[in-house]
Amino acid sequence: MPARLKVIVAYNGTPFSGWQSQADRNAVQDHLETAFAQICGERVRVHGAGRTDAGVHALAQCAHVDLSVRRYDAGRWMSALNGVLPPAIRIMRAGFASPSFHARFSAKGKLYRYRIWNQEVLPPLESGRAWHVRDHLECKAMQTAADRLLGRHDFRSFAANRGSIVKDAHRTVLKTRVRRLGALVTIEVEADGFLYKMVRMIVGALVRVGLGISSPGEIEDRLGDSERSISGPRTAAPACGLFLVRVRY
Amino acid sequence: MPARLKVIVAYNGTPFSGWQSQADRNAVQDHLETAFAQICGERVRVHGAGRTDAGVHALAQCAHVDLSVRRYDAGRWMSALNGVLPPAIRIMRAGFASPSFHARFSAKGKLYRYRIWNQEVLPPLESGRAWHVRDHLECKAMQTAADRLLGRHDFRSFAANRGSIVKDAHRTVLKTRVRRLGALVTIEVEADGFLYKMVRMIVGALVRVGLGISSPGEIEDRLGDSERSISGPRTAAPACGLFLVRVRY
Repeated sequence: MPARLKVIVAYNGTPFSGWQSQADRNAVQDHLETAFAQICGERVRVHGAGRTDAGVHALAQCAHVDLSVRRYDAGRWMSALNGVLPPAIRIMRAGFASPSFHARFSAKGKLYRYRIWNQEVLPPLESGRAWHVRDHLECKAMQTAADRLLGRHDFRSFAANRGSIVKDAHRTVLKTRVRRLGALVTIEVEADGFLYKMVRMIVGALVRVGLGISSPGEIEDRLGDSERSISGPRTAAPACGLFLVRVRY
Repeated sequence: MPARLKVIVAYNGTPFSGWQSQADRNAVQDHLETAFAQICGERVRVHGAGRTDAGVHALAQCAHVDLSVRRYDAGRWMSALNGVLPPAIRIMRAGFASPSFHARFSAKGKLYRYRIWNQEVLPPLESGRAWHVRDHLECKAMQTAADRLLGRHDFRSFAANRGSIVKDAHRTVLKTRVRRLGALVTIEVEADGFLYKMVRMIVGALVRVGLGISSPGEIEDRLGDSERSISGPRTAAPACGLFLVRVRY
């Protein structure tokens, strides 16, 4: 009997070419498909909740796979996969799902966290896990700016170019939180969906606010600028600081 | 005019042969001495507050160096050193100290933190930064056992063999704290000094208590056993979970 297996996947994004299958076969999806092939001799397609770019980490990406036979229980699938996957990719949980469940299309929202180390020197253990911003960030202004993003808007102006080919660029931001813990500034953004590089573009804009280069109002102006007519730097924050925390179903 | 420079050093212990200078010249001390030589052409001796083993990390190790001339201000020394050190070693702060200051002999205490990941699967981002213990740890029992270590005791039975050649094995444990945050269990131990592998031996013993293999009372019995007559496993927890958090002066 065929079965749909749902897996929660964590990975350190540093050594991989992002989530989505690549010619170099070094994407997380490639490693997962290879692992399934090694275990059951079947070529399967792994469907992820969403793509993460090269260098972006995941605490709990979600994916599903259709197996021609159930073969093992879910716990044994988890152990078997972890036995052949590279250590930088781990199946944290596994379970069988109903045929109506789809990792991408059933997702109701995603939560991302972005980490910034805001101090003169980046501690070695933060290397590859945070964006190093030396100058002081004013978190209160960043939160004020982030609040302007809440609700349903056309986020075209917060997407990298690839976003412009999306038909409908409306997304609903459900939650934003900017928090400082010593030198660590974290920005959390939860939305029903994200455009290409949207979190990193938002973080880039918020950091400009935190540095006093732009004002919270400019975030709002840019949000209304679905024609992308307002010029000015639209820089995506580096991939290494970004973590996919959770997919909500 | 000669000057004594004090530096706060952070390092990811994974790629190094520990703190203390080694024949392979890959100890943190070696890299620091090489960095000073590169900058000022002088062979200097770097004195650390204490040694950390291969794989042990430091958030704030302290060291001092005697320079024949002050040459730069402390901030410039910091930038210059960080410019030539490997990225896994960073000078977090630097300042000139009085000639009476000695990184090792002036230290009044040290705080270590040990991280344990207590869940079936180790998330990739915790690899090399935590000890993976799958079976459930009872933190309350661990804290009860840790409390028995408080105060001044002969810690010979919590030292690796090298500890037995120490003349006076009395140390004063000032603080212990066992805490759980989800799957992460942290153990903090602060003392006026530590014997060889003492924190890791303590953690090894506490984990046995947390797993229900031994009781808090056995920790106390072992503490009184300065002759090491009580048999039984005396295993040091792995190096990768250990962090030197702070040196107190």
